[in-house]
Amino acid sequence: MKKSLFITGTNRGMGLGLVKELLKNTSIGTLIAGARNLENAQQELRKISDPRLHFVEIDVQKEETIKDAFLKVFIEDIVGSSGLDILFNNAGVLIPVSVETEIDRDAARLNFDVNAIGTLSVIQNFKPLLDKAVVKNGSAQIVNISSILASMQKTFGSFGDRHFTGYAMSKAAVNMLTRCLSIDWKDQGIRVTTISPGWVQTTMGGEGATTTVDESASGLATFVMKLGEEHNGKYFNFDSAPIEW
Amino acid sequence: MKKSLFITGTNRGMGLGLVKELLKNTSIGTLIAGARNLENAQQELRKISDPRLHFVEIDVQKEETIKDAFLKVFIEDIVGSSGLDILFNNAGVLIPVSVETEIDRDAARLNFDVNAIGTLSVIQNFKPLLDKAVVKNGSAQIVNISSILASMQKTFGSFGDRHFTGYAMSKAAVNMLTRCLSIDWKDQGIRVTTISPGWVQTTMGGEGATTTVDESASGLATFVMKLGEEHNGKYFNFDSAPIEW
Repeated sequence: MKKSLFITGTNRGMGLGLVKELLKNTSIGTLIAGARNLENAQQELRKISDPRLHFVEIDVQKEETIKDAFLKVFIEDIVGSSGLDILFNNAGVLIPVSVETEIDRDAARLNFDVNAIGTLSVIQNFKPLLDKAVVKNGSAQIVNISSILASMQKTFGSFGDRHFTGYAMSKAAVNMLTRCLSIDWKDQGIRVTTISPGWVQTTMGGEGATTTVDESASGLATFVMKLGEEHNGKYFNFDSAPIEW
Repeated sequence: MKKSLFITGTNRGMGLGLVKELLKNTSIGTLIAGARNLENAQQELRKISDPRLHFVEIDVQKEETIKDAFLKVFIEDIVGSSGLDILFNNAGVLIPVSVETEIDRDAARLNFDVNAIGTLSVIQNFKPLLDKAVVKNGSAQIVNISSILASMQKTFGSFGDRHFTGYAMSKAAVNMLTRCLSIDWKDQGIRVTTISPGWVQTTMGGEGATTTVDESASGLATFVMKLGEEHNGKYFNFDSAPIEW
């Protein structure tokens, strides 16, 4: 049975790498790549040619673009009544928030608004398509991209002038969202899993990052296609190793 | 050595209960009760008469009131150059966020803005007073009021029509803030601890709450005065039992 997957935040970096890796998997029948602004997306993304690949504009900060994306995916019959098997919430930002100087409340809010509320809203808007997949195939899967910084036991603190605290707070909220939905929707056949991509060599990862985009994207693309009941409400590294909360 | 303590959110409920319980402790030399609006605070709070008790207006959503509160506590010599031994972040809101209907982004943001960013801003603004206490007494303590719902392992999900998810996400962020600062400031003598008050019979706790305000406030008031190095960066119940992240 071919699967359909919608992934957000594919303009560049990890998202772009994930699109390329996911297309290598022949069990994917439909891959919908969401990007905030398709015109400004890297040419590399736009140039990928595969009959299974569709592009949709979506800015997870803007409700109307989330609703439009849902309508496009559903009504324009990209997946239509078969529904969506995997919803992959990859879009995110890392805005530095210094705790040593006057707090930049807007920066702290922005991390939360994109990473946590944006993810929540995409999930809520796309749930009708997940429900359809459950009817057809017995289950559907939500994947939320988290961070090792979201682990209470593994987090780094501010990490000097990287000012990670605001980002870590928003990703802890993503982990909590994962936990809450995994409890709420357990009996509905919808599973929710939170995964750290590792410390990836992207603009967001910055200096010191230890994992290449290819390594992380390849590990993630393999792992998300294997997720099952036993991964519901849990937290993993991109290589499928469990992470302590 | 008498200690000084500043607590936010004392208008009513737990905060009011905590003021009464803390005043029973003779090792407290100065207790500063922060309230969003002193005129609207319960008469019960305003009627407490104790030479150690001072009132300060503070709305943790509004930067200018946080700065004014700091100036009042510092400059008007409530604690002055002795600094502040314990900063007790109790102010918080519980705004329901349904995950089954269109997401109310403002409601989700409000939980985060008050509970997480408000706490961060109060800590950053009052840090100079904590630093003074460290110079004088070797250490200072930050207490962040969390919730059992902030535990990834113990959280309840939405809990039906209570719609706890947005609140739980904001309190998970408070736990992460606690972890980050406990790492950043470990060598500065400032300790940070996150504590659940239990499910308390207040307006916030609502129906089904199992712990009385008196039980919780009494347990908390005893516990916060005993916090030491071994509690830095950790998560406890009001009765001092550790909670799993």
